[in-house]
Amino acid sequence: MDTSLETLDTPALLLDREILARNCARMGERLRAAGIDLRPHLKTAKSRAVAKLATEGHSGAVTVSTLAEARYFLEGGFSDILYAVGMVPGKAPAAAALQRDGAKLTLVLDSVAAAKSLGDAAAKLDSQFRVLVELDTGGGRAGVAPDSDDLLAVARAIEAQPALELAGVMTHAGHSYHCRGAEEIAAVAEEERQGLILAAQRLRDAGLPCPIVSAGSTPTAVHARSFEGLTEMRPGVYVFNDVDQVGIGSCAPEDIALTVLATVIGHNHRTGRILTDAGALALSKDVSAQEFFPDVGYGRVCDLGGRPLPGLYVESVHQEHGLIATADGTLPYDSLPIGSRVRIQPNHACITAAAYPHYEVISDGRVIEQWDRVNGW
Amino acid sequence: MDTSLETLDTPALLLDREILARNCARMGERLRAAGIDLRPHLKTAKSRAVAKLATEGHSGAVTVSTLAEARYFLEGGFSDILYAVGMVPGKAPAAAALQRDGAKLTLVLDSVAAAKSLGDAAAKLDSQFRVLVELDTGGGRAGVAPDSDDLLAVARAIEAQPALELAGVMTHAGHSYHCRGAEEIAAVAEEERQGLILAAQRLRDAGLPCPIVSAGSTPTAVHARSFEGLTEMRPGVYVFNDVDQVGIGSCAPEDIALTVLATVIGHNHRTGRILTDAGALALSKDVSAQEFFPDVGYGRVCDLGGRPLPGLYVESVHQEHGLIATADGTLPYDSLPIGSRVRIQPNHACITAAAYPHYEVISDGRVIEQWDRVNGW
Repeated sequence: MDTSLETLDTPALLLDREILARNCARMGERLRAAGIDLRPHLKTAKSRAVAKLATEGHSGAVTVSTLAEARYFLEGGFSDILYAVGMVPGKAPAAAALQRDGAKLTLVLDSVAAAKSLGDAAAKLDSQFRVLVELDTGGGRAGVAPDSDDLLAVARAIEAQPALELAGVMTHAGHSYHCRGAEEIAAVAEEERQGLILAAQRLRDAGLPCPIVSAGSTPTAVHARSFEGLTEMRPGVYVFNDVDQVGIGSCAPEDIALTVLATVIGHNHRTGRILTDAGALALSKDVSAQEFFPDVGYGRVCDLGGRPLPGLYVESVHQEHGLIATADGTLPYDSLPIGSRVRIQPNHACITAAAYPHYEVISDGRVIEQWDRVNGW
Repeated sequence: MDTSLETLDTPALLLDREILARNCARMGERLRAAGIDLRPHLKTAKSRAVAKLATEGHSGAVTVSTLAEARYFLEGGFSDILYAVGMVPGKAPAAAALQRDGAKLTLVLDSVAAAKSLGDAAAKLDSQFRVLVELDTGGGRAGVAPDSDDLLAVARAIEAQPALELAGVMTHAGHSYHCRGAEEIAAVAEEERQGLILAAQRLRDAGLPCPIVSAGSTPTAVHARSFEGLTEMRPGVYVFNDVDQVGIGSCAPEDIALTVLATVIGHNHRTGRILTDAGALALSKDVSAQEFFPDVGYGRVCDLGGRPLPGLYVESVHQEHGLIATADGTLPYDSLPIGSRVRIQPNHACITAAAYPHYEVISDGRVIEQWDRVNGW
C-alpha cells in the first residue's frame, strides 16, 4: 500500500482518523449526557468502520438513506436500521428480505395512500413493517404538520394495516442548513423538538402508540438547548464536517476530517488559475457553502498538512479539472509547482464522498488504512 | 433480470439503445464524410459497449479522462488511447504500465516545466511517451495560445526530452458550451480549427513534427462548417446528449438517450411538490442547463415512455430526495400517485452517469441488457 500523500494516486479521498474520532466522541458524549440515543445517519460516511466509531457508547442503532446501505450495514453487524426516506411498495420486497435476514427495520411515510399501499405490499409478502410518521417541522421537504389532521389520519391508516406497526414520529429539520450560528440553530432545534413533542402527545392522546420520537440534523444536534421528550437524534455529516457546516456554525474549520487530495496539473498565467486533477467528479458540483462564503467556489485549498492556504479556493470545475483562484488574482505558482499536491476541503462531505469507493484513512500525514464505502442503490 | 420499468429498482440509469445507436451513427457518418477520424471522448459513457458503437467505421482510437478509463478500455481491446488531461510525473508509472501492456498512449501537456518533469520521469521508467501540446483556442481552461511563443517553447521542450515524442497539437473548445444555436457554435468551431491550423503550421515551419491535429467538443463537432486541416475530432457527450446540449443547440430533445428512472415517494400539497427517490446523488448537482432554461432545475421530468411531461422539472434535490415542481404550481398528483414512476432527463449526462455502476439498456420500453461503466480513478 502506498502510504505517502506525496505519491498516492490522485484524486483520493482522505479521512483524518483523529479528527473523525474526535467528532464522533464529542457527539456521542453530548447525546449520552442528554440521555438520548444517537442513531447516526450513515448516508454521509456509508462505512462500517465509521459506523462503529459513531455508535460507540450508544445502542448501535443506525439511520440509512438507501436500502443498499441497509444491506451493507446489516451484513456488518448493525441490525437496528431506520430507512429515513419515504417508503414505497416497490421497495417492500427488498425491505422484507432485510428483515428475513435479521434486520430490525424501521420505515417512514407521510400519507394515507402510502400507508395503504405499503400495508398491502407487506401483507402480500407476509411481512410486518415498523413505521414512523414523518413530520414537517419547518424543512418543507416531506412530512405532515405536527398540528394537522393529517397526522392522526396517517397514524390511524398505519394502525389499520395488519401488516404495519406504528412506531412513532420522526422529522429532519433541513432548514437548519440555512441558519447562521448557534442562536439561530438553537431556535430551529427547539422548533424541531416542539413539533415532535406535540405530534407524539397527540398520538398518545388518541390512544395510539409512539415509542420513538426521532429528530435530527447535525446543526440541531450540536446546538439544541434541550432534548427533552425525544428518544433519539440522527445527525450525519458531523462525523466528517465540511465547509458548509463551518458556515452554518456547526463546527470549527479544524473539525473537517474529510479532504480530497489533488495534484497540480497546470498553471494558467493568463487567466490566473492553478489547475488540479480534482474536478466536478472528485469534488462534486455542490455549491451549498457559497451561501455563507463568497469565495469558496467548489472547496477550500489546503496544504498537505491540511492547513488552509489563505484565499485559495476552487473557482470552477470541469469533469476532471479543478481551477484554483484567489480573490486578488495572485497565485502561488512557485510554491505549488506542476506535480505538487494540495488537499481540498469539500463544500458538502456527503456528496463529495459519494464518488469514491473507499477512504484513505490518514494519521500523522500518512495513510494507515483503506475503509470501504457502499455507494449506489 | 428484472426487465420492466414498472418494477426495476430505482433510482436506475436508463440508456435507450435506439437513440444511442442513432447518435453514434450520425456523428460517425458526419466525420467519415469529412474525412477525419472520430476519437470519441469516453469520459461520458465510460463503457466498452458504447465505445464499440461510437468507434464503428473509424480507427478505433479513443479519448479518456482518467487512467482508470485507459486501463479499462485497453483491457476491452481499445489500444489507441489519448489521455486528454494535463499529464504529470506522478501518473507516469501508471501510464508506463499501460504501454507495457500494449497501449498506444498519447498524453497532453502545456508547459515547459511539465515537459521537463515528464521527460525525466519517463526516462527513469525506461519509457517513451507520445505527447501533444495542448492549445487554448478560447476555452480559457488549459493550453498555450496558438500564436504564442509558449507554443514553440513547449514543443521544443518536448522534443528535447529523449523519452518524449512530439506528436502534434490538441484543443478543446470548452466555450462552445455557452453558445446558443448553430451560428454561434460554428463560429467557435472555426476559431478552434483556425487555432489548431495556425499552431500546426508554426510547428512545421519550425521543423517540428505535427502528425496529430486534434479538436473536439460535441457542439463544435455537430456544427463545424469545415474540418480541413484537422486529423481527428473528440466529441463525447453526443452519444447520450442531455438538456444542456439541447439548450446549446447540439441536438434535439428527442436525441437524449440517457434518463434516470425514479419512483414517486411522496406528495407535498402544502408546498406544491411531488417527491421522488432521485435526488442529488441520482441526478448530480449539475445545473449547467439553467443557463438556457429558467425552469429546468436539476432535470426535466418525462413519463415512462420518455415523453416530457410539460412543465414538470426537478426544482430541488437533497441527497436521496428530488422535488418536482411546475412553474404555475399545479401538480398532476392524480396521474403520478405514490409508487408510480417517472424518467428524468439529466442536465449533464457525464456527471449524472458517474453515480451508477452500470446502465440499464432499454429497447421498446424494456430492459434488454446491463452495460458496465468504469468509475473512479
